[in-house]
Amino acid sequence: MLLSAAIVAFATAARVHALWPLPRSLSEGTTALRLAPAFHITLAPSVHGAPADLYEAILRTETQLWTDDLGRLVIGRGAGDVSAFEAAAHLSELTLELDAGSTVLSITEEAQKPIEQRNEAYTLSVPSNGSAATITASSTLGLFRGLTTFGQLWYEYEGTVYAVNTPVEIEDSPAYPYRGLLLDTARNYFAVSDILHTIDAASMVKINEFHWHVVDSQSFPLEVPGYTELAAYGAYSPQMVYTPSDVETIISYAGARGIDVLVEIDTPGHTAAFADAHPDFVACNQARPWADFAAEPPAGQLRLANDTVKEYVAGLFSAIAEMFPSSMVSTGGDEVNTNCYDQDPETQALLNATGLTLESVYDDFTAATHGALVAAGKTPAVWEEMVLDWNLTSLSNETIVLVWISSDDVKAVADKGFRVIHAASNYFYLDCGAGGWVGDYPAGNSWCDPFKTWQYSYTFDPLANLTADQYSLILGGQHNLWTEQSSPSNLDPIVWPRAASSAEVFWSGAGGNVTSALPRLHDVSFRMQQRGIHTIPLQPYWCAIRPDECDLNW
Amino acid sequence: MLLSAAIVAFATAARVHALWPLPRSLSEGTTALRLAPAFHITLAPSVHGAPADLYEAILRTETQLWTDDLGRLVIGRGAGDVSAFEAAAHLSELTLELDAGSTVLSITEEAQKPIEQRNEAYTLSVPSNGSAATITASSTLGLFRGLTTFGQLWYEYEGTVYAVNTPVEIEDSPAYPYRGLLLDTARNYFAVSDILHTIDAASMVKINEFHWHVVDSQSFPLEVPGYTELAAYGAYSPQMVYTPSDVETIISYAGARGIDVLVEIDTPGHTAAFADAHPDFVACNQARPWADFAAEPPAGQLRLANDTVKEYVAGLFSAIAEMFPSSMVSTGGDEVNTNCYDQDPETQALLNATGLTLESVYDDFTAATHGALVAAGKTPAVWEEMVLDWNLTSLSNETIVLVWISSDDVKAVADKGFRVIHAASNYFYLDCGAGGWVGDYPAGNSWCDPFKTWQYSYTFDPLANLTADQYSLILGGQHNLWTEQSSPSNLDPIVWPRAASSAEVFWSGAGGNVTSALPRLHDVSFRMQQRGIHTIPLQPYWCAIRPDECDLNW
Repeated sequence: MLLSAAIVAFATAARVHALWPLPRSLSEGTTALRLAPAFHITLAPSVHGAPADLYEAILRTETQLWTDDLGRLVIGRGAGDVSAFEAAAHLSELTLELDAGSTVLSITEEAQKPIEQRNEAYTLSVPSNGSAATITASSTLGLFRGLTTFGQLWYEYEGTVYAVNTPVEIEDSPAYPYRGLLLDTARNYFAVSDILHTIDAASMVKINEFHWHVVDSQSFPLEVPGYTELAAYGAYSPQMVYTPSDVETIISYAGARGIDVLVEIDTPGHTAAFADAHPDFVACNQARPWADFAAEPPAGQLRLANDTVKEYVAGLFSAIAEMFPSSMVSTGGDEVNTNCYDQDPETQALLNATGLTLESVYDDFTAATHGALVAAGKTPAVWEEMVLDWNLTSLSNETIVLVWISSDDVKAVADKGFRVIHAASNYFYLDCGAGGWVGDYPAGNSWCDPFKTWQYSYTFDPLANLTADQYSLILGGQHNLWTEQSSPSNLDPIVWPRAASSAEVFWSGAGGNVTSALPRLHDVSFRMQQRGIHTIPLQPYWCAIRPDECDLNW
Repeated sequence: MLLSAAIVAFATAARVHALWPLPRSLSEGTTALRLAPAFHITLAPSVHGAPADLYEAILRTETQLWTDDLGRLVIGRGAGDVSAFEAAAHLSELTLELDAGSTVLSITEEAQKPIEQRNEAYTLSVPSNGSAATITASSTLGLFRGLTTFGQLWYEYEGTVYAVNTPVEIEDSPAYPYRGLLLDTARNYFAVSDILHTIDAASMVKINEFHWHVVDSQSFPLEVPGYTELAAYGAYSPQMVYTPSDVETIISYAGARGIDVLVEIDTPGHTAAFADAHPDFVACNQARPWADFAAEPPAGQLRLANDTVKEYVAGLFSAIAEMFPSSMVSTGGDEVNTNCYDQDPETQALLNATGLTLESVYDDFTAATHGALVAAGKTPAVWEEMVLDWNLTSLSNETIVLVWISSDDVKAVADKGFRVIHAASNYFYLDCGAGGWVGDYPAGNSWCDPFKTWQYSYTFDPLANLTADQYSLILGGQHNLWTEQSSPSNLDPIVWPRAASSAEVFWSGAGGNVTSALPRLHDVSFRMQQRGIHTIPLQPYWCAIRPDECDLNW
């Protein structure tokens, strides 16, 4: 049912203008419509007691309609539309309505619900005769998604804001409930303003999860109440931290834009930064040669056989659960290096004293950290090795598993009955293809070469290799920015508009066509530019304003 | 002689701090020195009648010394230097001196001299006892290069500006006279401010040539007096042009920073944009399928068999010669598509009527365009196909040849006796590795994959495969930014600090070592950041402040 709706939508793609992600059901006309100077967005009585974040979204939308100033991406940038829009009706009103019986919560509260409970569906109707447009939904989050779509209908030419494709009738809802973007703020630091800016862009393409890989072996910038020594000693500098107030700012900014924050405290690997405050907690800390002990420098892993460490980390996750309202928290679990523990005298002494194996203490450690999260009402998320490389009885099947190494691994995770988020390096790693960064290595290239083009990501099939009864295990997917070679300097151009490709795959479903998508993605990119996001150009401008003319066989 | 000096310099690299490119001869001490609050730069009597651009350079340097605010790239960012600099002498004066008998010209005039006449040599002496530092040279251009080096000695910690490596004694001059950077402003447009910003960065690493690929098939943004219809019809928009005043601004800004502007009007291929004003001048204009007629869309080449076209283009080059003071102008000559002419009825009619071959009319066309340049006192520069794919008797051996397809082609160009600028895609193309941009091509990757890392560019040997008697044909080399997928959004991070790698190869000579270069290149990158250039991070910050610790075998 969901898939067939997506196919209907893609079949009409030739007439679709700037909508991204493509609505699951869409009909468009060919009549122009002008935005009236007095245009305003109103709330129907059904939205009685509307939350502040909905009012804010309305005001932002009203402003952006007049400030986007996006010319149509055709020769003349709208000059050819003048006769059409001069004869067009004026739209004065957009009404937002909630379906009867809907509870009025804030966008933020809706966005932070457990993933299977979120309701992002909406309908949008824009008549061509100037009578009021309407968005209906069962949640403020659905209304917000509808506002985002509404904002993509409009172009500007010499002061007139107009649409070219009315009447518009849209029924829309996501194919997958999880559409994310990962940012690593540990390899290089990003200011809060950079994160907010990225959330703005993500929200434009209906991404609903900010996966915040906040700490790693290189730095621990997160100030966690009760555990502040980790950032005090492990952050790059006292300025390069995220205070609890910063975290609140990010969470509320994201929530108001329909985005939940999935925080990750990667354990027990990737934890050398814990050693700055607690040297006793970390095995193989900065051990040499690092390549024998870790995937990248510095080496260092939590001594998971040590009960003090285990209890400390469980307590840390309890504190994290208090900081982050999301229903999900990631405990990491990637790239645990067994040699680090094999060579660590303390870990070996503890294993010898108890007769336990490394796997069994990892299981105990996981029981403790996941237990702390479950006690706080959270669902743990982990990287794929936790289920594919280790036999951890403590991992409940409620655990959400992110596949990163290869999309080929998805089937094995699903076969074990776990829910999956697609995040595979072979499709969704934004850092690949930029050469190696390890020193003393002139021939070094990126380990995950080649560069993952938007076109390639866009052809991803979330259900490949799975049986029909496994489809419901697929929650969605995300692009990932690991930041060994990224900073605020290249954040926008390395992410945008590429990350919009997965946002559409996981909203609209598989089956999109790069050829019809390209003009729409140009539109995404240009609209982001108008809002201050420094997207890369997908093509020469000559091509951008001549849809199809730079296609391979044109 | 030059090479042995370079070897001496590289042998001392372990003690070199932030200097880039590495001076050809260098001795450093280990004594700290503070910059006095009253520090000032003075001119010796030998610089009587100093030009305004030297005064401007002095004022910029004096400002930057206090505003760079670059902390040392070590743990603590300079906290460990406090005891050393608190005991250090204060430097109050830097004196600039010209060698006896030197003519005092402006930096701009020196930078724009014919390439074999430029003199960039200088010596720099910085005593550790606080007595005056000195830069000596035979030209204001040499003094300017010395100022650039002087500026790289200084770090800041809590308000103190200090060096850690005095006394410093440097004798320096470039291994190669040409060190360039190419920017394509035709595929996507760059504002004048973006170009000036790029010139600032280039000047920091002693690049001395801005190769401006200003026009191409996609757009013709250059307003040429007498030929203004080309931009009027061929620019992307009336706002996306470079007026004669803009060009003057760029040339003088570059000149004052020791950089000459080599403009390129690519002919007879890459000229579809001429058709917007002169449709009759262009064969296969926007012909389909474009791939049969051009390397990228849109197709279109000047009808070189047509005398009117030939005379028009020769006149255009005369006008270009008036606009640009450089001794060099590039006429392009790459990727001429013979099928375009084979399929063009007008060209075929003209060839049939005269009995001439395409090659012979190309020769006549080149004689006319190069003749116009030579008559204006210019040396033509061309891309490699002009000498390797065509037998053009009109090409004088004075012509400078840029090798772009592959560094393997350099030997063949040198064997024909032409001077060479290295610009090969397999080492120096900044755009490679970012995926394909042609539409309707989901599997498309960059034609020149993989990404060219700074490390790989840095290992380039300018003299590889050549005989000793051909060494003098090598003028230098350049990184190139073709902008199908670039715009102001990603200009800084795609260029910097990568393009510094060729700047050092062609200043300091071959033989550099990526391992000792990395900490210095971090320094380049961080100093550029302090001056507003959005360089990418080469590594996680953890590595940047721990020289060597992220090396492969650390």
